[in-house]
Amino acid sequence: MPVNLKPPVAAQLLPVPGISLGVAEAGIKQANRKDLLVMQLCEGASVAAVFTNNRFCAAPVVVAREHLGSAEGVRALLVNTGNANAGYGERGVKDARITCAALAGLLGCKANQILPFSTGVIMEPLPVAKIAAALPSAVANMHSDNWLAAANAILTTDIVAKGISKQIVINDVTITITGISKGSGMIHPNMATMLGYIATDAAIAQPLLQSMVSEASDQSFNCITVDGDTSTNDALMLIATGKSDLPEVNEGDSDAASILQAAINEVATYLAQAIVRDGEGATKFITVRVESGKSYEECKQIGYAIARSPLVKTAFFASDPNLGRILAAIGYAGIADLDVAALKLYLDDVLVAENGGRADSYREEEGQRVMQKSDITIRVVLNRGNEEATLWTCDFSYDYVKINAGYRS
Amino acid sequence: MPVNLKPPVAAQLLPVPGISLGVAEAGIKQANRKDLLVMQLCEGASVAAVFTNNRFCAAPVVVAREHLGSAEGVRALLVNTGNANAGYGERGVKDARITCAALAGLLGCKANQILPFSTGVIMEPLPVAKIAAALPSAVANMHSDNWLAAANAILTTDIVAKGISKQIVINDVTITITGISKGSGMIHPNMATMLGYIATDAAIAQPLLQSMVSEASDQSFNCITVDGDTSTNDALMLIATGKSDLPEVNEGDSDAASILQAAINEVATYLAQAIVRDGEGATKFITVRVESGKSYEECKQIGYAIARSPLVKTAFFASDPNLGRILAAIGYAGIADLDVAALKLYLDDVLVAENGGRADSYREEEGQRVMQKSDITIRVVLNRGNEEATLWTCDFSYDYVKINAGYRS
Repeated sequence: MPVNLKPPVAAQLLPVPGISLGVAEAGIKQANRKDLLVMQLCEGASVAAVFTNNRFCAAPVVVAREHLGSAEGVRALLVNTGNANAGYGERGVKDARITCAALAGLLGCKANQILPFSTGVIMEPLPVAKIAAALPSAVANMHSDNWLAAANAILTTDIVAKGISKQIVINDVTITITGISKGSGMIHPNMATMLGYIATDAAIAQPLLQSMVSEASDQSFNCITVDGDTSTNDALMLIATGKSDLPEVNEGDSDAASILQAAINEVATYLAQAIVRDGEGATKFITVRVESGKSYEECKQIGYAIARSPLVKTAFFASDPNLGRILAAIGYAGIADLDVAALKLYLDDVLVAENGGRADSYREEEGQRVMQKSDITIRVVLNRGNEEATLWTCDFSYDYVKINAGYRS
Repeated sequence: MPVNLKPPVAAQLLPVPGISLGVAEAGIKQANRKDLLVMQLCEGASVAAVFTNNRFCAAPVVVAREHLGSAEGVRALLVNTGNANAGYGERGVKDARITCAALAGLLGCKANQILPFSTGVIMEPLPVAKIAAALPSAVANMHSDNWLAAANAILTTDIVAKGISKQIVINDVTITITGISKGSGMIHPNMATMLGYIATDAAIAQPLLQSMVSEASDQSFNCITVDGDTSTNDALMLIATGKSDLPEVNEGDSDAASILQAAINEVATYLAQAIVRDGEGATKFITVRVESGKSYEECKQIGYAIARSPLVKTAFFASDPNLGRILAAIGYAGIADLDVAALKLYLDDVLVAENGGRADSYREEEGQRVMQKSDITIRVVLNRGNEEATLWTCDFSYDYVKINAGYRS
């Protein structure tokens, strides 16, 4: 079950002026569930994106990148779940284009003004006919108040919908930011098996919007791991509709830009953490914080060695303070000149290791006490510099194996 | 249960003249099991080693390295299971030295002529008194015919003992090589949670012996992974007693050296594969072969991305040909200029993917047929060079989680 994560209620997800959303049942993988989302954007909305760096990137990623680069302006996003349209070569790209054209026909725009997204099983053909048949119903269903339905429609193995809204005031104008995301396996940075959509009614100049989505992504979705597998389909989209009364924000407006960036980061971090909290089979949410390193990169490298270790993750699942496994992970993280005698390891507030081994003050009961919690912080203090990195992961349970062994059945 | 792996019977493990082995019950972790091994070497025996590159290397590794470097000559190896003597700082090193001194006293040699090895739980103090108390009984038990007992005494979560002997003839002299190893979790190259001991009665010059153990290790123990965790304690030892009638082999004797190397590689490969076949929770043995790459390194990098992927490994556990997960792993392996449309993916003899996606000829029933087997080969043909690499791994099952969640209980 998700770790300390409740789905939002509809009233918590605020409409973003300029955006309307419609869902439908295309019957792609399961019957009787909404598996198709159309998100229509007002004319003049700006869109910026970060995509997976997997070399086997899926067909919709190829097409979405291409369409984002065209000068026509994005008018809608089309998302299906149940099938990733990945690993199907040229046919996959053709299929993605067909669905874009079908939606464009209904909305009265061009096919290259549609961005397609797919998530689900890899290497099976996209059921184009089913999607095309369901599109009219999704379009008929469009409403600005449909964010919760949208959050539900994009889920795969997720247990709960993930969404959040935040409002900020800039120069007396209230700005709304609403975001939704989905996980929940094949989660590893750059990016994860994840889709994230964040929209605001602020007007944001395109270069700033792109730098904002990159920064938000680096601080959130690129700091999580469930299983170390980087998906073929990941995408984080940041949409600025410009429907608020605030004049367009650009890189020169440092105050407005930094207030917006902070709020967008907050939404992105919530959505990224929600993916981990609902990680496949997760029973614990683990924050890994590596401090006082020589560089951000080495902190992240050590953090990921811990966060990816099946041995560390199964120990957390068992609530067993077998904390030597964390030391072992630090040791194999690949930092050649690491002085293991200089570092300290904490579990929440409990000092576990120092001087190259177990701390004299450490008592098993203390480790056991922290291990019983569902939100736990592993803190490694390297004592060799001033940089730090924070990552989020979950434990590794029977249910992860169960979910992934039976995924297609 | 181990995948197509039976323990050796005593008669299959041939004595190596110059070596005698004794085991005893020290009661380190479990009652009523032999958990202590003494391997005595004749005077003049040569020893070469490869150790873990984990920065948190365990105390016995520190001490064994140091003793190997001394000029006195190694006279015995001391191995305990149940406790890794790792992550215990200075005290761990002192404890390892105490056990060496205790054994040296019994054998009439110096403490720095003993190499200590430990495997088991990390970050708990080594029960030195229990080990010292059991040493006389291990020494009293020493016999050249004790290889199977030795193979059993070093196991941790392993289900079956691992050992093999091979005889070769060089210049009409029969040479014996016998090896034993243990796994079976925290297995990842450079090295694995593994101990391996290979001994021969050939006389081999020290520099050649060192290059032989490195080559054997690179082709065997450094090509396996169970869970991606690199242990703190790994060691592979190659011992040459020189008790055969064959004159000392050195780097100039290319024929004799290459016959010996091939036989040692074969023994090491058997022992390494046995560790994977008995990998924690393994139900399938998977060979990952990456061919026609630009470099050995990129082949290995892609191979490990596949071999480490929890999604790939759970699919094999389920016998589910969800083979897109293999494509995804190839895609995130980090080869920036990889042309995914150029590669071919085979499962045993079945062509699964080409031209960037599922092969037209591929039929799910064919994938299903191969997936039912317990020994399966994943073959990736990159079509961009002449190098190749082969790795071995196992699937990821409920039992892996069970074993590692409950390891200390």
